[in-house]
Parts: sequence; structure tokens; C-alpha cells
Amino acid sequence: QTAPSAPPTRLGLCAACHGPSGHASMPGVPNLAGQKLDYLRHALRQYRDGRRDVPVMRTAIGPLSEAELDALARWYSMQSPQPQDHS
Amino acid sequence: QTAPSAPPTRLGLCAACHGPSGHASMPGVPNLAGQKLDYLRHALRQYRDGRRDVPVMRTAIGPLSEAELDALARWYSMQSPQPQDHS
Repeated sequence: QTAPSAPPTRLGLCAACHGPSGHASMPGVPNLAGQKLDYLRHALRQYRDGRRDVPVMRTAIGPLSEAELDALARWYSMQSPQPQDHS
Repeated sequence: QTAPSAPPTRLGLCAACHGPSGHASMPGVPNLAGQKLDYLRHALRQYRDGRRDVPVMRTAIGPLSEAELDALARWYSMQSPQPQDHS
């Protein structure tokens, strides 16, 4: 599994809430950095088919192809997570 | 928000799949270390009320009190995440 060096083209769509490297800045939004790839794929499928009924995610994912989704999942799973800031 | 030093009493229940410090060892199971506390609370509520229809989570969470659930969410959000092992 070679690390994708360049960010996926659609990264901006996700980065708006999850941050470009998966450190979420918005309340209620999960960190994605270093998350398990198969879990990210699972969650994305559930957002896409509505089993996870989160309109903003369904809208964001709607126009993406399977390949684009997978590249985004791989990107975030490769990012190094940050210890929580507990200030 | 003081860091809970001692692990929550029910940690073993979660650690079976998520690991004691939130580094999941089983496929399909998400890492929890350093995840956003409000997101963990959101996800737990959804597992409990079935909006996230995952039987193993519903079973695991069933007997827990709100306080126990919250202590577990706080515990995992306080753990420092590990960079992915991409070997």
C-alpha cells in the first residue's frame, strides 16, 4: 500500500469540516487522521446509502465516484493523528 | 476537564475490540484514541438507540449507565493516538 503523496483532488470537500489532514476543527465532527481504512470505507458506504442518516455527509459524498471516495479514505487513514489538545 | 487517571471500571468491555487505549486490533473496528469527545458521545447514542444498527455495539452498551458510557467516551478521547502502522 504505497502512501499517496499528492492529496486527492476532492480533498477540499472533506477538509472544510475534517481538516486537510483529518484534525477536525468543528464541533461534532470526528478526527479522521490515522483512522482504520476499512472502517472509513464502512462509514462512507453507510453515509452514502443512508444507513448513517447524516444529510451533510450524503450531500458531500453524492457526486464522488467510488475511486474518489477510496482515495479520500486512503488519504485520511495515512495522516498522522495528533494527540488531543485538552487545554 | 481533568484527565481521568484510572481507567473506567467497564473498560474491558470496549477494550476487547478497541484496545485499552483505543488502538483497534480487529478489522473493521475504529481507533478511538484522541477522537473528539462529542463525536464519541454522538456515536454511542446512535449505537444505543439503533440509528447505527450494529448489534455487537448495542449489546455491549446495553447494560451500561449513562455515567459509565460517558466515562468510557472521556477515557478514549484522552488517549494519545498512534500513527498508523502501514507495514
